Amino acid sequence: MGTIRTIVEEQSGQTVLRRQIPYVRPQSWRRLLIGDRLSNADAPHQTIPKVVGLAVFASDALSSTAYATQEILAILALAGAGALPFALPIAVAIVALLAIVTISYEQTIHAYPGGGGAYIVARDNLGELAAQTAGAALLTDYTLTVAVSISSGVAQIVSAFPALLNWRVEIAIGMVLLVTLINLRGVKESGSAFAIPTYFFIVMMFLTVGLAFFRYLTGSLGQVVNPPPLEMIHEVRAMSLFLLLHAFSSGTTALTGVEAISNGTTAFREPRSRNAGITLIWMSVILGTLFLGITFLSGQIGAVPSEQETVISQLVRTVFQGQGPLYLAVIAATTVILIMAANTSYADFPRLSALVAGDGFLPRQLTYRGSRLVFSRGILSLAALASVLIIVFDASVTRLIPLYAIGVFLSFTLSQAGMARRWWRIGHLAPEQEVKDAGSTLHYEPGWQLKMVINGFGAFCTAIVMLVFALTKFQDGAWVVLILVPLIVLGFYTIHRHYKRLARRLSLEGFGPPPLIRRHRVIMPIGGVHRGTLNALRYARTLTHDVTAVYVSTDAATSDRVRLKWEHWGEGARLVVLESPYRLLMEPLLDFVDEVCTYRQPNELITIVVPQFVPAHWWQNLLHTQAALTLRMALMRRKGIVITNVPYQIDEEEPTEEHA
Amino acid sequence: MGTIRTIVEEQSGQTVLRRQIPYVRPQSWRRLLIGDRLSNADAPHQTIPKVVGLAVFASDALSSTAYATQEILAILALAGAGALPFALPIAVAIVALLAIVTISYEQTIHAYPGGGGAYIVARDNLGELAAQTAGAALLTDYTLTVAVSISSGVAQIVSAFPALLNWRVEIAIGMVLLVTLINLRGVKESGSAFAIPTYFFIVMMFLTVGLAFFRYLTGSLGQVVNPPPLEMIHEVRAMSLFLLLHAFSSGTTALTGVEAISNGTTAFREPRSRNAGITLIWMSVILGTLFLGITFLSGQIGAVPSEQETVISQLVRTVFQGQGPLYLAVIAATTVILIMAANTSYADFPRLSALVAGDGFLPRQLTYRGSRLVFSRGILSLAALASVLIIVFDASVTRLIPLYAIGVFLSFTLSQAGMARRWWRIGHLAPEQEVKDAGSTLHYEPGWQLKMVINGFGAFCTAIVMLVFALTKFQDGAWVVLILVPLIVLGFYTIHRHYKRLARRLSLEGFGPPPLIRRHRVIMPIGGVHRGTLNALRYARTLTHDVTAVYVSTDAATSDRVRLKWEHWGEGARLVVLESPYRLLMEPLLDFVDEVCTYRQPNELITIVVPQFVPAHWWQNLLHTQAALTLRMALMRRKGIVITNVPYQIDEEEPTEEHA
Repeated sequence: MGTIRTIVEEQSGQTVLRRQIPYVRPQSWRRLLIGDRLSNADAPHQTIPKVVGLAVFASDALSSTAYATQEILAILALAGAGALPFALPIAVAIVALLAIVTISYEQTIHAYPGGGGAYIVARDNLGELAAQTAGAALLTDYTLTVAVSISSGVAQIVSAFPALLNWRVEIAIGMVLLVTLINLRGVKESGSAFAIPTYFFIVMMFLTVGLAFFRYLTGSLGQVVNPPPLEMIHEVRAMSLFLLLHAFSSGTTALTGVEAISNGTTAFREPRSRNAGITLIWMSVILGTLFLGITFLSGQIGAVPSEQETVISQLVRTVFQGQGPLYLAVIAATTVILIMAANTSYADFPRLSALVAGDGFLPRQLTYRGSRLVFSRGILSLAALASVLIIVFDASVTRLIPLYAIGVFLSFTLSQAGMARRWWRIGHLAPEQEVKDAGSTLHYEPGWQLKMVINGFGAFCTAIVMLVFALTKFQDGAWVVLILVPLIVLGFYTIHRHYKRLARRLSLEGFGPPPLIRRHRVIMPIGGVHRGTLNALRYARTLTHDVTAVYVSTDAATSDRVRLKWEHWGEGARLVVLESPYRLLMEPLLDFVDEVCTYRQPNELITIVVPQFVPAHWWQNLLHTQAALTLRMALMRRKGIVITNVPYQIDEEEPTEEHA
Repeated sequence: MGTIRTIVEEQSGQTVLRRQIPYVRPQSWRRLLIGDRLSNADAPHQTIPKVVGLAVFASDALSSTAYATQEILAILALAGAGALPFALPIAVAIVALLAIVTISYEQTIHAYPGGGGAYIVARDNLGELAAQTAGAALLTDYTLTVAVSISSGVAQIVSAFPALLNWRVEIAIGMVLLVTLINLRGVKESGSAFAIPTYFFIVMMFLTVGLAFFRYLTGSLGQVVNPPPLEMIHEVRAMSLFLLLHAFSSGTTALTGVEAISNGTTAFREPRSRNAGITLIWMSVILGTLFLGITFLSGQIGAVPSEQETVISQLVRTVFQGQGPLYLAVIAATTVILIMAANTSYADFPRLSALVAGDGFLPRQLTYRGSRLVFSRGILSLAALASVLIIVFDASVTRLIPLYAIGVFLSFTLSQAGMARRWWRIGHLAPEQEVKDAGSTLHYEPGWQLKMVINGFGAFCTAIVMLVFALTKFQDGAWVVLILVPLIVLGFYTIHRHYKRLARRLSLEGFGPPPLIRRHRVIMPIGGVHRGTLNALRYARTLTHDVTAVYVSTDAATSDRVRLKWEHWGEGARLVVLESPYRLLMEPLLDFVDEVCTYRQPNELITIVVPQFVPAHWWQNLLHTQAALTLRMALMRRKGIVITNVPYQIDEEEPTEEHA
């Protein structure tokens, strides 16, 4: 025990004691794994500059360049190799969409300097249902981000080391565990450590793309040597608009992660909205450039979508003419950025689930911060869910992709529609009028019309994409998400109803002075007459003089012995013997309690006093029936009954006459 | 609720209530599976004639003819086909041993008309350690009997239907479940139902052996057609004395089950010792005849030990010249008797473990009879252990055999040595002297010398066999049993020490009038101020006026709110706020309790009153931290502290002002 500081406060005539217990319990294995406990006072308050901000928030978005091109090609390949050149115009369309979304989110960042994730924006402007829908969609997608990013990271490793092909799932699960552990340790270490790999990735990718363009322009780029065989998970189809839209849908995964900066505006240095906005634009420019470049170059070298070797790997080894150190460096950088993208979800998922839980739509436990100040339960839930996805989908990016990004686009749509609604409300305020919103204060702003149109257009585009997505990928797996999200929302509301009802039941509003307890009756089930029983009897008699001991008898000889002993030791308390010819113990007792309750007076309190052995070692519990526990479970639901356990510790020392 | 009959008795000035609650709870699925509850009054008291007794007790012993010959051949085959004819002299030696054991047990039956299993005989005559060793050996062997018999039964089925070879383990586990279910239903149905299959087996086997001899004598027996390939689990060795002894050891499994009748003497009609003794001799004669016949004939037809087809199957299809209906009938009879042999262990294991538990060497729960009057826990333990064995040893009889029968021979030795000791004591009593033993009364008996020699010789022979067994089969798996049995005995004594210490601690001998409780202090941990808390507070105040509410604060804003609310609703009770900067909830509370205990007065009682929600549905528990439960676990071990849960049910109705 540390030193307990006691602070005595006088508040309106009542003495209030405030005690500070500096408690740190050393737990060797936990400390080794996740580090020492952190105090509330250790919560990080530092903000980060733009350069670090880009590194922290961009990994998710940038990492999608590692698979977006490949997924476009994988769909186009269904119409034969001749369809592959369509990838470039599709990529252009996606970059245009990226621009729209970026401009739209730039506005959100300025409107919500305190952090404007889709959940908050929807809640403030579109109401609860929209917010919960956004929440469900985002939580689903964060989970998928982990599964997709880790799977893609493993695919890069497998490209470089084909011998590992059959260990994909195991490697992926190992990575999930590693990222989980890092996140349980908390964010303190992770902040600036992010900068190095992100910039390494950016530099390596620009080096690859730049060199490739140089070779292309000088005509020395050439084709992929030994491309992997073209595998197809679907049947061959004719080229069609449907197929084009399908490929487009798959490619839009490039946009996932764009919303990250608007969620985390508070992390930036002041003027934070401006800094965050600039970072967002930078990120989108880098993302767009790389994505277009990779798509264009993949077409030029004749890269082939495959589970055995990623398109990135094919491109890089063509550019660097072999699998030398530079090849390995780019693949390593790509793998690391993919793992860091998964890591982003480890920040987002627990934070959002704590937000949803704080509003009462998820278990409250998700709002508690663990010993390292992180939402440990959220982190563990995410790890479990993502692992299940990886195992079920065999760590295959192509099989996971159809489920991915619907949630993101749903949240994009809700977030931007919410912003449009916000501008509409702002536009209809009288000058000087102030409206307090849940999160912010609204003032009239000139030029709201343009802003509303921009956000509205963003919402419109993303809604269309979402529809295209749902239609073209429905069969491949999108239906799972289309069923899952409404079910999650339903779950949210079920939980919410419980908490609301609980609050009503517990509310002290209109709670009058409670009636006095006029009679107190104790029922004490006993299994024999011994020190433990007498100890409990003595306790029972301090509560009331109306004590009834109850013994359930399964054979007459033993019950006669109990009766004789009770005569001598029972201090005159009533003994009821319940005969149980079917050798049941609990049921006759419950029946007896029910019977007693039937004849209960108003304002009569019934306490069940249960003598309970506590053996010295846990395994010794196996040597005793856990009657006290079973009884507690059974009586818990009966109203107006209080259950008291009087423990009697059996230990190594000789018994003493000590009290209780 | 049924009609409760209340009987009022006056005993030495104290009113004693005796209540009879005719309680039968309908549990549809349980009733379907294991039948209606049986009352104590339903316990079977009928006895059985010799003809039924033979059927009930002989299945274990007779069934070993299904595999004993094969296991001898499996060892001899190591020295090549030329060694197989040694099987017959080995079988003769085993039958001689059978005769010795039978005569020895015949004496036990007469000395212990109340049932003289090895455990009881050893306990009465050799003391506790010998008894517990016998108990451990027998429990191990009963488990092995189930595994070996079921595996052998499956091997017969596989012989007839080779397509099932890869499903051996699954079929075996299915059979274990079936036998378990039958035994959970209880013995009432099973008694006479045993007679039919046992006699069917005896008739079919004598038919087979008889016809085979006829063919042998007329020279038309011939050789096995298409014998299975000779598989060997060991390397080929030269013929040696070791190998002969090894084969002998494997063959002695034929003797397992011989002790069954001496365990169950009480089941026989009067004069029960005589009837039981005659039945034992009959059983041994049948067993010896069949075993010798099968071994001789197997040699004549050139049967080969194999996992694919049993020797019995080879013999039967050679005798009946094909796999016609008669072949199938014999295989079916063999399978059924093997399952019934397993069933015998289902009676013996639970009964013996109840006996050992009654003496305090196994958990007491094993002595409770379930709703069908059987020792359900023992039955379930046996099923679990046997299933593990079957899975680990892949349902292979040959791999299980090295573990089997050491336990039986150890118990034979102990039992017969105990009997020899008993005759020695009887011989040294003065005429007319009576000695009360644990189980029986000893009188001087003339002719005790011969009886002592017979039992002593039995003990000597079985001890030798056991040693041979342990040496020759040590490497194959016998070492497992040689380590396991002492470990089990150690476990028995650990359990026994616990129960003995417990009895001493609970004993009322020298228990003076307990000191008065002079001060009663209540500590009430609260998580907020609401109806549930106030409900608990009201209860706490009926116990004492010294109530301290404790609130663990993880952030200042909330704790201020709690303090303000408490001022209004706390009825003047003390509130202590514990600040917990590391967001721990339980540890500061425990520290506080420790601190309070430090300043405790003599004879001061501390009660922890824990307000506890009880949600309407069990799943809603997931939405709340189970703080009450954790607290109970943590405080259970502290002395002089009583824990009271004041449940507060949250349900669908509107809250009422009802008390408690």
